[in-house]
Amino acid sequence: MSRIVYVNGDFVPEEEASVSVFDRGFLFADAVYEVTSVLDGKLIDFDGHCARLDRSLSELGMSMPMDRDAFLEAHRELVARNDIGDGLIYLQVTRGAADRDFHYPADATQTVVMFTQAKPGLAENPQAQTGIKVISIPDLRWDRCDIKTTQLLYASMGKMKARAEGADDAWMVDDGKVTEGTSNNAYIVKDGTIVTRQLGNEILPGITRTAVLRFAREAQMKVEERAFTLEEARTADEAFVTSASSFVMPVVEIDGARVGAGAPGPIAKRLRDIYIEEMRRAAS
Amino acid sequence: MSRIVYVNGDFVPEEEASVSVFDRGFLFADAVYEVTSVLDGKLIDFDGHCARLDRSLSELGMSMPMDRDAFLEAHRELVARNDIGDGLIYLQVTRGAADRDFHYPADATQTVVMFTQAKPGLAENPQAQTGIKVISIPDLRWDRCDIKTTQLLYASMGKMKARAEGADDAWMVDDGKVTEGTSNNAYIVKDGTIVTRQLGNEILPGITRTAVLRFAREAQMKVEERAFTLEEARTADEAFVTSASSFVMPVVEIDGARVGAGAPGPIAKRLRDIYIEEMRRAAS
Repeated sequence: MSRIVYVNGDFVPEEEASVSVFDRGFLFADAVYEVTSVLDGKLIDFDGHCARLDRSLSELGMSMPMDRDAFLEAHRELVARNDIGDGLIYLQVTRGAADRDFHYPADATQTVVMFTQAKPGLAENPQAQTGIKVISIPDLRWDRCDIKTTQLLYASMGKMKARAEGADDAWMVDDGKVTEGTSNNAYIVKDGTIVTRQLGNEILPGITRTAVLRFAREAQMKVEERAFTLEEARTADEAFVTSASSFVMPVVEIDGARVGAGAPGPIAKRLRDIYIEEMRRAAS
Repeated sequence: MSRIVYVNGDFVPEEEASVSVFDRGFLFADAVYEVTSVLDGKLIDFDGHCARLDRSLSELGMSMPMDRDAFLEAHRELVARNDIGDGLIYLQVTRGAADRDFHYPADATQTVVMFTQAKPGLAENPQAQTGIKVISIPDLRWDRCDIKTTQLLYASMGKMKARAEGADDAWMVDDGKVTEGTSNNAYIVKDGTIVTRQLGNEILPGITRTAVLRFAREAQMKVEERAFTLEEARTADEAFVTSASSFVMPVVEIDGARVGAGAPGPIAKRLRDIYIEEMRRAAS
């Protein structure tokens, strides 16, 4: 069955879902995006994603093309039309189509695209039982990674490099310190303390990161928001990543060396359980 | 009159020229491009652009979607159908459309888009008589600027910042040294010597740069390929930029301070004349 995709107010079969070749999302990567998880047909932390979308647009001198309620309605309509139980909703907003010019167009209408990806059993991902293996790569991305743009080529290259080396993902390293994973925030645990890089232009302010750190603190876990080195990561007791689609995912190997016991650690497991339980409860 | 645009083998009116929302050029900026100038209906340095396209694709693990002759034929067809005397042909190649995944798809068909922009009197651009003003901005781009990808958001932001400050363009500075302009290579002239940054991952290997440096050496001008500081630029006798669409363009002001006499310098003017004359002669 063909998916139904949202394009600028219309719900169309995926084969017909297109944008102009003059769209600035296509020509300049002048676009931002969000990915919201769906569990049991409900949206996980929709408001968090909506707020970050607003911020990303604002950093690029754009405003929201429609309000929160209209985004929510479109998300729910896509869930219903595509019969999504567990899965993802991808949302992209561009500056719109205009004849090619590096300068922003004065009068373009923003492009809004949304589509679903069905992921049955998303919360029961078997990888969470075994953990994932990561490699380290230099962070060659631009210096505004806090804006969730579609300039994702390096992240894509990193995932391919990881796969070529028999790993699942890559952690990026800048000036000796881990910034983040290619599509997730990175954490280590040492002597019971959770360490993850502080917010800044170098990393994405993860929506899942915010929620997980809140749950960790509520559970009386110790949290340090600071940059950590690759060496610290290799000698940590545990490591994990968080993202909207993987929730909390244990990391059991870095550059071929086991982290801790080489199996998902108790803190990562517990945070994953808390996160999924709390988010299911609050889902909209 | 509506332009005729090339999309994957078809010549279609611009209103119908579209790509899938699942195109990786749209979702991941997984795409490269070239811009070739047209003078008197003929292509300027087509082979140079074709060779660089091949290199960009190769650096991203892609191959040429069609051969040089097929690209040339499509370029000429676009020139004819759109009755282009002077102007540009924009060409973009993406990895193709596939359901969204950071990993490259195993079986996607590359997307090829080409369109024209009419620029009557391109070689007689009055800006070449007065020169342009640039501002300096930090170079926040990724670390593989030698690949001509569509990750152009920062270049676009730079052009907007320049305009907001009453300038025409921006030069990017990394570690105290000028890398390049937002869409051109940067040069200064001091005591008769032309200085421009050496090739590397920090700058685009300009097709116009290659030709201009060759003409300069043939004309017995002294050329140094090395990084130069913003301070050197401010105290230079002349400054200029080169690109496929601006050819050789004098820079007369940097960050509000005049360069040399604050007017186009003799070396920039001479190189512009030589370049246009030689390229018209060799045009295909």
